[in-house]
Amino acid sequence: MARLKGFQKLTLVDDALQKWFNVLQIKKPRESTVPLNDALNRVSAADVIAKEDLPRFDKSAVDGYAVKSQDTTGASQFKPITFQITESEEVGAKEAWQIWTGNPLPKGANAVVMIEHTKKTDGKLEVRIQVATGGNVSKKGEDVKKAEKILQAGTRLTPYHLALLAALGNSEVKVAEKPRIAILATGNELAEAGSKTSGNQIFDSNRIMLTAMSRELGAEPVDLGIAKDDLAEIAEKLKTGLRDCDAVITTGGTSVGGLDLVPDVVNNSGKPGVVVHGLALRPAMPTAVAALDGKPVVVLSGNPIAAVIGFEVFARPLICKMLGMSGEEPRPTVNAVMTRKVAGALGRRTFVRVRVTRKNGEFLAEPISARGSGAISTMTRGNGFVIVPENRGGVTEGEVLLVRLFGNVEEVS
Amino acid sequence: MARLKGFQKLTLVDDALQKWFNVLQIKKPRESTVPLNDALNRVSAADVIAKEDLPRFDKSAVDGYAVKSQDTTGASQFKPITFQITESEEVGAKEAWQIWTGNPLPKGANAVVMIEHTKKTDGKLEVRIQVATGGNVSKKGEDVKKAEKILQAGTRLTPYHLALLAALGNSEVKVAEKPRIAILATGNELAEAGSKTSGNQIFDSNRIMLTAMSRELGAEPVDLGIAKDDLAEIAEKLKTGLRDCDAVITTGGTSVGGLDLVPDVVNNSGKPGVVVHGLALRPAMPTAVAALDGKPVVVLSGNPIAAVIGFEVFARPLICKMLGMSGEEPRPTVNAVMTRKVAGALGRRTFVRVRVTRKNGEFLAEPISARGSGAISTMTRGNGFVIVPENRGGVTEGEVLLVRLFGNVEEVS
Repeated sequence: MARLKGFQKLTLVDDALQKWFNVLQIKKPRESTVPLNDALNRVSAADVIAKEDLPRFDKSAVDGYAVKSQDTTGASQFKPITFQITESEEVGAKEAWQIWTGNPLPKGANAVVMIEHTKKTDGKLEVRIQVATGGNVSKKGEDVKKAEKILQAGTRLTPYHLALLAALGNSEVKVAEKPRIAILATGNELAEAGSKTSGNQIFDSNRIMLTAMSRELGAEPVDLGIAKDDLAEIAEKLKTGLRDCDAVITTGGTSVGGLDLVPDVVNNSGKPGVVVHGLALRPAMPTAVAALDGKPVVVLSGNPIAAVIGFEVFARPLICKMLGMSGEEPRPTVNAVMTRKVAGALGRRTFVRVRVTRKNGEFLAEPISARGSGAISTMTRGNGFVIVPENRGGVTEGEVLLVRLFGNVEEVS
Repeated sequence: MARLKGFQKLTLVDDALQKWFNVLQIKKPRESTVPLNDALNRVSAADVIAKEDLPRFDKSAVDGYAVKSQDTTGASQFKPITFQITESEEVGAKEAWQIWTGNPLPKGANAVVMIEHTKKTDGKLEVRIQVATGGNVSKKGEDVKKAEKILQAGTRLTPYHLALLAALGNSEVKVAEKPRIAILATGNELAEAGSKTSGNQIFDSNRIMLTAMSRELGAEPVDLGIAKDDLAEIAEKLKTGLRDCDAVITTGGTSVGGLDLVPDVVNNSGKPGVVVHGLALRPAMPTAVAALDGKPVVVLSGNPIAAVIGFEVFARPLICKMLGMSGEEPRPTVNAVMTRKVAGALGRRTFVRVRVTRKNGEFLAEPISARGSGAISTMTRGNGFVIVPENRGGVTEGEVLLVRLFGNVEEVS
């Protein structure tokens, strides 16, 4: 059971993802219907079709006068045409009907003259511009046509989606239920943040981080606490997680004292167990992905940065899929100039933490000097990843590369 | 009181922001202390100083054997050096002490030989590589030094900030209390989304959108409902908003039937009232910004897109400031190639909605054809703004421009 010499074989990231998702068979998420005011950042669970046209009627796009456009033919600043101002229900020939932005166009009118191009004198109106039919009119259905699809299932809802839904009369929306993700930290050395530590103990920070990362994506994290490096205790907690939740993420115990504690527990807990363990991924090589009772298990390293990268590579697309998104939700990206070269590792995918800034309109990516290999501060000092692919030994200074952002980019001078 | 000919004078956006913030005197936000698990996306209210070193002790960065580095001098694959394996408290000369990643370095040792570079034979250890002092050791304090500032006040908290705080033993963090933003829609034509509409009514969508936009930034929106186009009713609701909240945002009634309903109510409600009304901003020209009893009031147009832009330009930096951030929180941006030219308006700042995609590593910005001027669907079809500055009459096809993103960017082929 002991594995003392590292992994015999590392699996390529894309192969691992494919193998894993092949055994997972993730179901369509459960739906729940929520009021629009509770739907921000949720993921839609069903397509939404417009129940009516938007706008609901022809309406004025400006403040002015509704007219028959043909009556304005030839009108100009130097040759104004005089209209009768009317308030009757229908606009007749050479009649003008005062109208405000957003108001429905009265019967008989087919265009609006902006107020700036008119002059009221002696109860009559001088029109000083020619308008085309439909001029300054928002046509019924010009934004959205009845029966048009206004929202696709699997869409992360922004304030603008909510506005569009509301404008079409919807007060609620079907969203994917939040997948419940159990999070377990393992390690004899771990102490709860805020407690007293002694000797060799360190504060558990990965559990809090993975909880927040899961929540950020729209999952509901469920805390399984800290387990000692003990097969029975880990097995018990894993069982609880699998019973109560849709997936389990663990951190630590992927290579403890030369033993693969958590992978071993996973393999003893059901089929198929660990699908891949040992990845051509730097950092995060000791990550394992597994399936138990059809549920996904992500076994992350205890090293904070390896846990971040393992989550980014495996848990992130998993949660997106569980939410019913068609693919992994893209993080914001930029093309940035590397300020210095960085070594990769041929045959492995390497995540380099960088700090992107914008200077004179150009994006610069400064590799973060990792003072420590697992240094979590590199994630707060940095704001993005440059991903060096497997076929590159590194990247050079001055190279323009795509950066996947996880923090704000500042303008510098 | 009637304003029938548009604004006499439009104020430049930057001038308006300056004038407004000058009268606002926004206070430092109230602080509250929350557990780390509740702090994601909140804004820190105080600097945090490391209470101790991180790591807390010298520890091994790898699985292997702790040794005195000087004893490995000259060791190689071809000329291994033999060590005694020890389990005693202190590592002596030519002694090797088995150690796992993350464990504290034993007394006497100053380096770790990776397990891959050793061979165990007859209870002894062959070391096949030379290691330098400090080799494969994470030094005490190499990530964070005691008394170092690990978090600055005014920082939006990511999962990584929470992890760093936890790693240093913090279980909670001081965050800015959420500013309470009252949101009021005005308009006789407005019906509550989900209710029955009749005739000229339209569904109120701006209130739901502005609520979500405020919440997205970390404010606590407070619903003031819909007011009729009635001075007394608007005044009453505004009063409630000012009494209960830290700021008020209204939508509609900036130019209703030629009357500036909401700006008039604001001016009659206290000093200084409206600071700027009428902006060199397209869309969102009729936006007004005001201050009452020292509290900010943002008076947005009822046109959905004008409301979006008015919020983006005025409410967004306001809320960031109320949260104690040092400047406006930047949205993600990219440099993208315009796929066609777009007209701006010389002397005005123009927000052009675009859909950015990534194709062959390049970002392309396709202007969204606005089928209707206030068409909210342009915000769900688009994912970014190109901002045409006041000194440009437009932008040309092929030009590379900064895009401010409000939605995900997709890869296309």
